[in-house]
Amino acid sequence: MQRAGIAGATGYTGYELIALIHRHPELEVGWLTSERSAGKRFNQIFSTPWDYPLIPLADAYLRTDEVDVVFLCLPHAESMEAVKRFYGAGVRVIDLSADFRLKDVDVYKRWYGVEHSAPELCAEARYGLCELFRSQLGGAQLIASPGCYPTSVNLGLYPLAKAGWLGERVIVDSKSGISGAGRKTTLPFQFVEANENITAYSVGHRHRHIAEMEQVLGAANGEGRDHRFLFTPHLLPVNRGILSTMYVEAPAGVTEERIRELYEENYEGEPFIHLLPAGEQASLAHTVGTNRCAIAITAADPMLPEGGEFVISASIDNLIKGGSGQAVQSYNIAVGLDETAGLE
Amino acid sequence: MQRAGIAGATGYTGYELIALIHRHPELEVGWLTSERSAGKRFNQIFSTPWDYPLIPLADAYLRTDEVDVVFLCLPHAESMEAVKRFYGAGVRVIDLSADFRLKDVDVYKRWYGVEHSAPELCAEARYGLCELFRSQLGGAQLIASPGCYPTSVNLGLYPLAKAGWLGERVIVDSKSGISGAGRKTTLPFQFVEANENITAYSVGHRHRHIAEMEQVLGAANGEGRDHRFLFTPHLLPVNRGILSTMYVEAPAGVTEERIRELYEENYEGEPFIHLLPAGEQASLAHTVGTNRCAIAITAADPMLPEGGEFVISASIDNLIKGGSGQAVQSYNIAVGLDETAGLE
Amino acid sequence: MQRAGIAGATGYTGYELIALIHRHPELEVGWLTSERSAGKRFNQIFSTPWDYPLIPLADAYLRTDEVDVVFLCLPHAESMEAVKRFYGAGVRVIDLSADFRLKDVDVYKRWYGVEHSAPELCAEARYGLCELFRSQLGGAQLIASPGCYPTSVNLGLYPLAKAGWLGERVIVDSKSGISGAGRKTTLPFQFVEANENITAYSVGHRHRHIAEMEQVLGAANGEGRDHRFLFTPHLLPVNRGILSTMYVEAPAGVTEERIRELYEENYEGEPFIHLLPAGEQASLAHTVGTNRCAIAITAADPMLPEGGEFVISASIDNLIKGGSGQAVQSYNIAVGLDETAGLE
Amino acid sequence: MQRAGIAGATGYTGYELIALIHRHPELEVGWLTSERSAGKRFNQIFSTPWDYPLIPLADAYLRTDEVDVVFLCLPHAESMEAVKRFYGAGVRVIDLSADFRLKDVDVYKRWYGVEHSAPELCAEARYGLCELFRSQLGGAQLIASPGCYPTSVNLGLYPLAKAGWLGERVIVDSKSGISGAGRKTTLPFQFVEANENITAYSVGHRHRHIAEMEQVLGAANGEGRDHRFLFTPHLLPVNRGILSTMYVEAPAGVTEERIRELYEENYEGEPFIHLLPAGEQASLAHTVGTNRCAIAITAADPMLPEGGEFVISASIDNLIKGGSGQAVQSYNIAVGLDETAGLE
Repeated sequence: MQRAGIAGATGYTGYELIALIHRHPELEVGWLTSERSAGKRFNQIFSTPWDYPLIPLADAYLRTDEVDVVFLCLPHAESMEAVKRFYGAGVRVIDLSADFRLKDVDVYKRWYGVEHSAPELCAEARYGLCELFRSQLGGAQLIASPGCYPTSVNLGLYPLAKAGWLGERVIVDSKSGISGAGRKTTLPFQFVEANENITAYSVGHRHRHIAEMEQVLGAANGEGRDHRFLFTPHLLPVNRGILSTMYVEAPAGVTEERIRELYEENYEGEPFIHLLPAGEQASLAHTVGTNRCAIAITAADPMLPEGGEFVISASIDNLIKGGSGQAVQSYNIAVGLDETAGLE
Repeated sequence: MQRAGIAGATGYTGYELIALIHRHPELEVGWLTSERSAGKRFNQIFSTPWDYPLIPLADAYLRTDEVDVVFLCLPHAESMEAVKRFYGAGVRVIDLSADFRLKDVDVYKRWYGVEHSAPELCAEARYGLCELFRSQLGGAQLIASPGCYPTSVNLGLYPLAKAGWLGERVIVDSKSGISGAGRKTTLPFQFVEANENITAYSVGHRHRHIAEMEQVLGAANGEGRDHRFLFTPHLLPVNRGILSTMYVEAPAGVTEERIRELYEENYEGEPFIHLLPAGEQASLAHTVGTNRCAIAITAADPMLPEGGEFVISASIDNLIKGGSGQAVQSYNIAVGLDETAGLE
Repeated sequence: MQRAGIAGATGYTGYELIALIHRHPELEVGWLTSERSAGKRFNQIFSTPWDYPLIPLADAYLRTDEVDVVFLCLPHAESMEAVKRFYGAGVRVIDLSADFRLKDVDVYKRWYGVEHSAPELCAEARYGLCELFRSQLGGAQLIASPGCYPTSVNLGLYPLAKAGWLGERVIVDSKSGISGAGRKTTLPFQFVEANENITAYSVGHRHRHIAEMEQVLGAANGEGRDHRFLFTPHLLPVNRGILSTMYVEAPAGVTEERIRELYEENYEGEPFIHLLPAGEQASLAHTVGTNRCAIAITAADPMLPEGGEFVISASIDNLIKGGSGQAVQSYNIAVGLDETAGLE
Repeated sequence: MQRAGIAGATGYTGYELIALIHRHPELEVGWLTSERSAGKRFNQIFSTPWDYPLIPLADAYLRTDEVDVVFLCLPHAESMEAVKRFYGAGVRVIDLSADFRLKDVDVYKRWYGVEHSAPELCAEARYGLCELFRSQLGGAQLIASPGCYPTSVNLGLYPLAKAGWLGERVIVDSKSGISGAGRKTTLPFQFVEANENITAYSVGHRHRHIAEMEQVLGAANGEGRDHRFLFTPHLLPVNRGILSTMYVEAPAGVTEERIRELYEENYEGEPFIHLLPAGEQASLAHTVGTNRCAIAITAADPMLPEGGEFVISASIDNLIKGGSGQAVQSYNIAVGLDETAGLE
């Protein structure tokens, strides 16, 4: 058994990680940190019997020898320091923040408004989107686990982009369950405000998650092709799950059937990709509670034999495939376990 | 047209009041107060085109001549001072707080932990449960509008209590929509916490609303009979509505049919009481969005010809019949308008 | 008082119509028809005290003298015969079905797969989108009330289209509450299936509602300009409300501010259009329970000074502005009442 | 690995069973039956990649050699025949219907209105409420898995009943998620009808599940003590979970603390019982997605030192601890596995 430390354990992602670790055959919980709730027990923070002490991060830095891997569920900008400390102490790190996802620290600064304090580790970090970068993850000591929205978009469009079939203009209309906002208590996430409601946010303000789409899909074709992502997230009145409805243009000669074959080739044998048959649309019900990504492909106009517009929809559980599940999956690959361990 | 001032207008009750006033043939909005949002406009606080300025209460005290009636949607304890000021200035006051509901200021102090600063006005105030105390409301200058939970319980049990048929032990299992907690941002009312969940609260801690049940139902029979209310409120994952499921014992000889007749006699011609036929149970769908109270009566054991246990269920919209609608209804009676004006 | 007959009264639209008529100062309920529930009372079908008999349509044909206007809430194709009968008997008809919305009966046949049996009445019918066709509605004897999705799209894009600023490619990502599916009992609309879920449907199958978008927006500019609507409806886990997020391209020189001014000019004084200020997005909370349409305009890239992509979002209550409210609004115009009567 | 057949696999219980079997280290799916969907694949019925054929029950009778255990998720009355066939063929049977839960076939007939066709197997069957009857389950060939409501009530009250402290009158106010109604398409379970609503049902009609409460709790004290259960189930607008709020009377001298100690003794070491500390109430969040039962104990009046009324609340996931999880738990005991296998 390997022991996992979790920093920032009292958010929804931390809770989910612990649940996954409990099911994992080779992992067990080491220490848990929380700045706000240090000194309390985990079962005072959540409705659960899991009775773990919560320690401050500063204490965790002194207890690196008690764990084999650290999962960091800290806010962006705060994660940099923690990564340096744990990585420096020789502990394997899976960072769920945005801090090490972007290869270019200037791009990081532009989107997040913060100078990166560990650019050398950015180069070191592997991007933990397992289906696309599996070969880079074996043995990895530092993994940057992808954001929730980009995971749905990148898995949903990668085969198209890699084949050079993804048009320049990409419109992504995403709907996310409210756990995506974190365990916060601001008014828009209050039950009465969010329930029986839906609204777009960050419209045209260029949501930070676009950076990961540009990094992954722009490079997919090997030619650094540019796409223009018009990404509109919506606050959906469900607890968890993301559905991204994507509007893309493919070149002449490309049919819905051809695209489906392309995806089948790309994702053959992938345990967590669920390609839907013609006529079935992706829904949250396909993926919530699982580490799967469901993908549906539909020609906008079935009368046009080829080319034109397509609607690609992709759904994931934002806390599992878009968060803790993906982190565990990349850990499994890094240490050479069965990739699905604890994730079935 | 009469003009209404609303103090504490930026809670859910304030919003609902404005909506009702907009539909009311004889009322229009005067000023609105808000301590936290003074200086802003109402449509910056809610998703609405209603563009009213928000002023502090202190300013409203200087503008009593601009309004004919003031509706107070202030927290308990804070309402006392405002009632004194507005009532003293000769303005009709409908107070939606708990401050003037209890006739006995010692009882008030026991439940609310605050010394009452205007006992003489407590004696003056009329309890605005219109169906039961209509005769006391004509011309009233100060009305204490009832609490949401007690409205469902008192309307649901009054005929039984008045007939002397309500047993000593009364168990009330209430479920309330989350707007009942106010427009707050504490964790239990956050979407992800409350959605797909239900939990009891204030169990056995003797919720303050019991005082109104004791005051109304204890006196109903004219003999000051004591009942023991075991009241358990639950946080229900809906925006609005209260369902109270009540377990009572009636004396020998009393059948379900006889109770239904009793209720029909008591509530004959009441525009806002919806007595359900045998076999139909009260639901939120009966009342949400309306000023109605739906009441269902069911014998616990239909095989027992008489006496024994009964289940009485009553539903209301907590923000209308349990809040702003009832306040408008009592206003209508006080000024001699059609009781249903603006409430259809 | 005028009396209204409602044919097909036991769907959600019928229920909402009765609620609106109850609030209307000049309308009252005449007869109600239902084929499946004829012989029962309305309050046996819904949780309400409204106790009206339900008669078959065949009986209603014999009682045209009892009503001044008939609202038809029948399925498409079934409405044609009823319109002929009521209109022929000299009764004013507001048809909420799709049967008389499309001017071109060939277009009707193509989308609905049925030969139109009353093409002469199609020419006669006025399209009841009040804000855009008000001048055609005064005195109208036959009004075809618009579909729910097209109402949100047409109101949201008309000023752009009229100005000739609406690009050829229009992507509409709509989310609709489940009452939009009618009071049906098929599996996808079952609580457990739809709750905590979202899914697209009719993707790329060219939803019938596109025809109304083409008819209204194509003609808006006076030049019969063609647009390509890629319309994707989604099943949203809320009872009511539609949010349409629309992705459009405007010509060079057109800024977000300029578009907002354009909308302000077009919709000046409109009682039911709520134009949102810069930075605020349309939500269901803006419109559910009202006859309003809320519209927000946002430049996709605020860094680009002019032209380019815009996100227009529009929300309505599908049962009110997208159904019964709009029908009452057009009735008010037809008979010369205050347009907002019963709709405040 | 052992192979499990599932009869009636296309309901929510069947789906959940398959999910649990996938996580179970020693179980795998054999065949699945469905009468209505025979010939289709499982992934055509649910939004899942699980691609199993569905066969009719008649075919399963011929394939008993392919499975080691059969889980029956059939409607009551239909299960009797299937139990006879599979048990007769020497296959271990876990029956999730009501058919073998009641020891007394006359009681069965009274509640279910059907003559029992296999009374000898009723005597043979063990009641699979693992925490209370574990000792009877080792090696069991036929297990009747308990109902969802009774599981919450029996686990919640058993220690009190066994100690002889449970008063005669027991009031159970239960709230159940809508999956409890099965995968049906009747109107009350339609999204728009159930959402934002709550209603009691089977009030005073003596719900069939009372029989299991009487059987278990009546016998708990060894003296066959009679209790009068007034049980009121409510339809709660959530997908899954049951919360039972129970009102009981305990004898003089019994304090809340004493009851909590009693429960701790009774449930010591139980992996799936979560006794809540004083002041915490049971919620669905404690148990949904798990095989746990959370139990809270609160004195109705904390001022009374002893005796009197208590509120016991218990929550479970109706599909796991109240359904498939409990069935797997009893299977684990029967075959001598770790009781928690597949259930963590």
